[in-house]
Formats: sequence, C-alpha cells, structure tokens
Amino acid sequence: MIRRYMASSSYSNSPCAACKFLRRKCLPDCIFAPYFPPEEPQKFSNVHKIFGASNVSKLLNEVLPHQREDAVNSLAYEAEARMKDPVYGCVGAISVLQRQVIRLQRELDATNADLMRYACNEMPSTSQYGRRTGQGEGSVDQNSGYYNFPSHWNNDNHE
Amino acid sequence: MIRRYMASSSYSNSPCAACKFLRRKCLPDCIFAPYFPPEEPQKFSNVHKIFGASNVSKLLNEVLPHQREDAVNSLAYEAEARMKDPVYGCVGAISVLQRQVIRLQRELDATNADLMRYACNEMPSTSQYGRRTGQGEGSVDQNSGYYNFPSHWNNDNHE
Repeated sequence: MIRRYMASSSYSNSPCAACKFLRRKCLPDCIFAPYFPPEEPQKFSNVHKIFGASNVSKLLNEVLPHQREDAVNSLAYEAEARMKDPVYGCVGAISVLQRQVIRLQRELDATNADLMRYACNEMPSTSQYGRRTGQGEGSVDQNSGYYNFPSHWNNDNHE
Repeated sequence: MIRRYMASSSYSNSPCAACKFLRRKCLPDCIFAPYFPPEEPQKFSNVHKIFGASNVSKLLNEVLPHQREDAVNSLAYEAEARMKDPVYGCVGAISVLQRQVIRLQRELDATNADLMRYACNEMPSTSQYGRRTGQGEGSVDQNSGYYNFPSHWNNDNHE
C-alpha cells in the first residue's frame, strides 16, 4: 500500500515528457510514459511536431506492447530526420545508402572478376589494382529493384 | 475571361485527392492540388493517416515551392512504409541498407586484400576465391558512425 502510494506520488511529481508537453495529468496507465521520459523532452516534441500526438498514440495502440519501444524510437528517428531535412527527411538517408550499396556491389563484382583472372593466372586486361577504391562514380542504375527516387535525389548533395 | 472560367470550372469538377478526402472545396490556390491529383487518392489518404493533413500543409508551406514535390513524395514514401510496417516504417529499410553497406565494404576490403596478394605474386593465405560471395554474416559492427539501432533490428527479419 505504501509502495503503491509512493509510485503514484512519483508519477504525479514527474509527468512524462508527453504529458508535460501537452499540459495534462500523467496517469499511471499513460500510453506515452514508458517511452517518453521527462529527461528527454525533445523526443516527444519532435514526434508531436511531425506526426501529431494523436497519431503517435493511435500507432502505439495498434502495435503489441513489446514492439512499442522500437516503434517510438523509429518514429523519433524519422521525426528528427524530417526536422533536419524538411524536404527529404530520412528518405534522403535511404537514397544515399541505396547508392552506396549499388556502388559497392559494382566494385565488389569488378574486383572479384579481377581476382578470378589472377586465380586463372591471367593479368586483369583493363584495370590497375586500386582503381575501384575511389569514391567517384557515374549515374546510378535505377533498374535495381530499389524505390525509384527522382533522378535529382541521386546527386551528391545528400552524401 | 472565358479561359479563367473554364479553369475554375475544371477545378470544381475535379477536386484534388486531398480536398476530396477532406470533403472541402478545392480552390485554385489549394496547397495540396499540385501534388495530390485525384487519380491517386491513396497517396493523400496515407500521408493523412500517418502525418495528418495539417502537418503536411504546414510542412509544404515551410519549404520552397520547387521543393514541394520532392517533399510530398518523400512523405508519401514514409507513410506507405509506416503502414506496411507500423513498428519500424522506413527506418527498417535504413537498417537493412546499413547492414548491406557494412557487409559489402568488408567483402570489398577483403577481396582487395586478396587481389593485392596476387598482384604481389602471393597466393591468398587463408581464403579460397568465392568465399565472400555468400550472404551469411556475423554480428554487425555498431561503431561505424551509423545511427545506433537496437541490436535486435540487425537480425534477418528485415532482409
């Protein structure tokens, strides 16, 4: 009984970041409290600005309790990315990573082909060792099964 | 005058997907109309569900007119990803891509090292050609400057 009283008291003394932001009483069954501690006010303020408190609450109720922490963290990551880059948000990071994957796979294929020639005791016919370690590249193949970003997303502004 | 009347008439005959969804009159200066054509009702319905119409409108007003199409398309991509995967959304794709980049970079480094040994007329001491073309891998290095996802995001469920 004393413990319950203390827990309740602790709750009312430290509302979670969401309830503090929304200026409402943080009740023991608050859906936000486990994921938005008062020490991280920016985390809630970001997801509130980008998704809205109501949408976050709906989404938390739609996923299983053990998935909620990951859901909140991915929302917080998306929200922060959108605040840093209002045009592309975290989709800009996906674009950069897709280009890196395509470039690395091409370099790996070409290096493996060179290695195969060496293994067959032939010198590589067109290349010098090291030529594929540079960062420069040409246009990116869009027919690779990836999300089809507008072509100008694939310039170097996002790298 | 006639042309203006026709344009206005055309507008009132085909409200954009946003105004149709929100059951409001689509005016010629509608912020949504250029990016949410009536033929793509799902695009607006998705961003409305995940971000809210008001947040989308605010964001469109915050970016420059020539950036709005990209902004809408990235929001639509994020919204669709969140609807498909309510826990991770498009952050799941970032996690998968980060792991691919780390794996490919390691394979490329190792293949280049083998190639260097061949170039110096030494056989690779520990490897056979082709050993790094498989898909299996161990744990992922978290100290690589990437966003620090929870460790269980890096299992194979998202690949």
